[in-house]
Amino acid sequence: MKIDIDRLRSDLETLRTIGRVEETGGVSRTSFSPADREARRWYLERCAEAGLVVEVDGLGNMVVSAKDEPSGAKPVWTGSHIDSVPDGGFLDGALGSMAALECLRRLTEEKVPLSRPVRAVVFADEEGNYNHLLGSTGIAKGFDRARLEAMTGRDGDRLTDRFAELGWDLDAATRTKVEPGEVHAFVELHIEQGPNLEADGFDIGVVTSIVGLSGGKARFHGSADHAGTTPMTKRRDALLGAAEFLTTLPGVAASISKDAVATCGLIGVEPGGANVVPGTATVTLDFRDPDMGRLLALGEAIERSAREVAARHGLTVTWEPDTPVAPVPLDQGIRETITAAAEGFGYRHTDIPSGAGHDSQNMALIAPTAMVFVPSKNGRSHSPAEDTSWEDIEKGGNVLLATLIELASDEPATP
Amino acid sequence: MKIDIDRLRSDLETLRTIGRVEETGGVSRTSFSPADREARRWYLERCAEAGLVVEVDGLGNMVVSAKDEPSGAKPVWTGSHIDSVPDGGFLDGALGSMAALECLRRLTEEKVPLSRPVRAVVFADEEGNYNHLLGSTGIAKGFDRARLEAMTGRDGDRLTDRFAELGWDLDAATRTKVEPGEVHAFVELHIEQGPNLEADGFDIGVVTSIVGLSGGKARFHGSADHAGTTPMTKRRDALLGAAEFLTTLPGVAASISKDAVATCGLIGVEPGGANVVPGTATVTLDFRDPDMGRLLALGEAIERSAREVAARHGLTVTWEPDTPVAPVPLDQGIRETITAAAEGFGYRHTDIPSGAGHDSQNMALIAPTAMVFVPSKNGRSHSPAEDTSWEDIEKGGNVLLATLIELASDEPATP
Repeated sequence: MKIDIDRLRSDLETLRTIGRVEETGGVSRTSFSPADREARRWYLERCAEAGLVVEVDGLGNMVVSAKDEPSGAKPVWTGSHIDSVPDGGFLDGALGSMAALECLRRLTEEKVPLSRPVRAVVFADEEGNYNHLLGSTGIAKGFDRARLEAMTGRDGDRLTDRFAELGWDLDAATRTKVEPGEVHAFVELHIEQGPNLEADGFDIGVVTSIVGLSGGKARFHGSADHAGTTPMTKRRDALLGAAEFLTTLPGVAASISKDAVATCGLIGVEPGGANVVPGTATVTLDFRDPDMGRLLALGEAIERSAREVAARHGLTVTWEPDTPVAPVPLDQGIRETITAAAEGFGYRHTDIPSGAGHDSQNMALIAPTAMVFVPSKNGRSHSPAEDTSWEDIEKGGNVLLATLIELASDEPATP
Repeated sequence: MKIDIDRLRSDLETLRTIGRVEETGGVSRTSFSPADREARRWYLERCAEAGLVVEVDGLGNMVVSAKDEPSGAKPVWTGSHIDSVPDGGFLDGALGSMAALECLRRLTEEKVPLSRPVRAVVFADEEGNYNHLLGSTGIAKGFDRARLEAMTGRDGDRLTDRFAELGWDLDAATRTKVEPGEVHAFVELHIEQGPNLEADGFDIGVVTSIVGLSGGKARFHGSADHAGTTPMTKRRDALLGAAEFLTTLPGVAASISKDAVATCGLIGVEPGGANVVPGTATVTLDFRDPDMGRLLALGEAIERSAREVAARHGLTVTWEPDTPVAPVPLDQGIRETITAAAEGFGYRHTDIPSGAGHDSQNMALIAPTAMVFVPSKNGRSHSPAEDTSWEDIEKGGNVLLATLIELASDEPATP
């Protein structure tokens, strides 16, 4: 059995028009913005058209069921998110959300005999306008009122004000929580957001783990001096030290593992005058590895490199590390099911770690969880250039559908 | 004959209290600010106490004369500025201004027989709150009304509004101009603002030239990618290229001359997210050399290095050069007079280029001009840490006084 790629494509192309940025062709649907709310209303209409039932929890997660789903067995969930980063792409989250709905429609219209319910989920605020992975974090861990009340969006607005506008109850938000064992399994289809599948000619990525993530700020301290009167040999130029440190990052990452990455996406200098040698340079780092031990080693190697370079330049350095987020290994059994599904269709597949965070990392805390990746053209994501061929999207949808059928077809344990 | 160091010290310590920044011990007297205006009023009172006559021109330059100065001969000018950078030091400009006044007081009270007038000058807005070297640029080149009307300060305020508050006439400002030949000679005493005199044990620097200055922006363009999903080997990280380029600057400067300097005091990245590989990195450069040919060669070498590094990193680079400001050689005859004065006192002296810009570079356009430097402790300037020993200040003042007597003692040509 296969998905209806024409229907899925139509859904994705319609959803793409909601929050479209005309100048770039990108999509801006930051969570609970007018565009995101319109997308949510449109999604509810699509479910109603298909005769499906939607439950919206206190954080805005939408869980979709067939009217005549099997009773008495724990459900299989699948889904992703439909919010986006500002001026992002049209597939990040949207693909997994609409493919989940498509699978549920196919299962319903084909009356596939299943022993478990299959439910399609749309998680709220995955991209973290208010809180990174808001909806799935609530499902896995819950939020207390104080934390929700403290959340503000990119524009400085408060989450509680958005909820009030929507007529949503903050008490219901604090009650949102799914206990471990309530969900039988979770599968998320997503674009890779990186260049590996395309570069290596694979159709399907079977995700092994979601990378561990850490970061920190390295502040190099030297001496702010006059750019005209201080000879090159008598400077303690904080930026020069920071620059040499940055050039060491590729080698430091490679020394840990081939999957390790280290990035400086923000840099600032003080006092910040065109004719003043920088006295302080601050680099903000993001570094990741799929293995916790290696992630910690990577952080240590980065700090060591900063200190070595600082010493060579007569600078001091302060290192302010973030708290690491542990890597999440995905479920071996579901990974084998996905692999078998891909082989059944004759698709080229490979195991691959996820370098980005996903709602799956929260779902893995309460249920066996796995992910399916499809290739991203040129690896581009969080960008209007984000794209995947319709052939690859169809293959991903087919693998997801076959995986769901397999997961929902086992003999449920007696309750 | 020597200056009265106690009186000069008292003046400098009083001036230091005007615009004092309590937290840092620095001085903030940006031009035409309340603190700068208070300092100007205080200066006028000091002149009145000494029985001297002040003329204020249309741009706010103050020119001070003795009541009984010799008539019929072109005057010798000396002076500097009393405005400061925000949270700057207490000697930059103030030393040369107050030492000039002290010399004029000593010449007057000792009734030194001179063939030419000696006049003390305080130039307006040397530090460029509204326009770098505003007052001396007006004296050397003049300003038209449109340029003055377009000038805005660090806080976005308009120069013309400040002038209106002071009751000053913009027409008078446009008429401010001194023709070449009207001034017989100009000498400016200043702190070195660099570490060389102190490091090498000299009391006095005889300034050979004011460095040429240029600059520009190098923009490195790569690809903005997800910091988690883009392998290190598949990135086109604009900041990594910019960082490697910065590490080449000391070598590039050294390849041109021992006096060449190249500085990046400002850097920015886009999109500027902690988890996004920078797609663009922009570095703002300041580079200087005392020789025009070498200054141009330095600019070319910097651009070449940017292009080579960019090519190695798979980046493109755009180079937006500033218009170079030519180096200004100082007057050989006055330099010899200064040298002879220093030797007369038994002070250790050396020839030295000035790495910073000064009002002298404008005065050199209309009159034979030279500068005297005294050591800066640890080379610090434009900083609350700016300092010079009172012994060195006295030596500088004595050399200035002896130089002025010599310059004003020649037989004036018949008018």
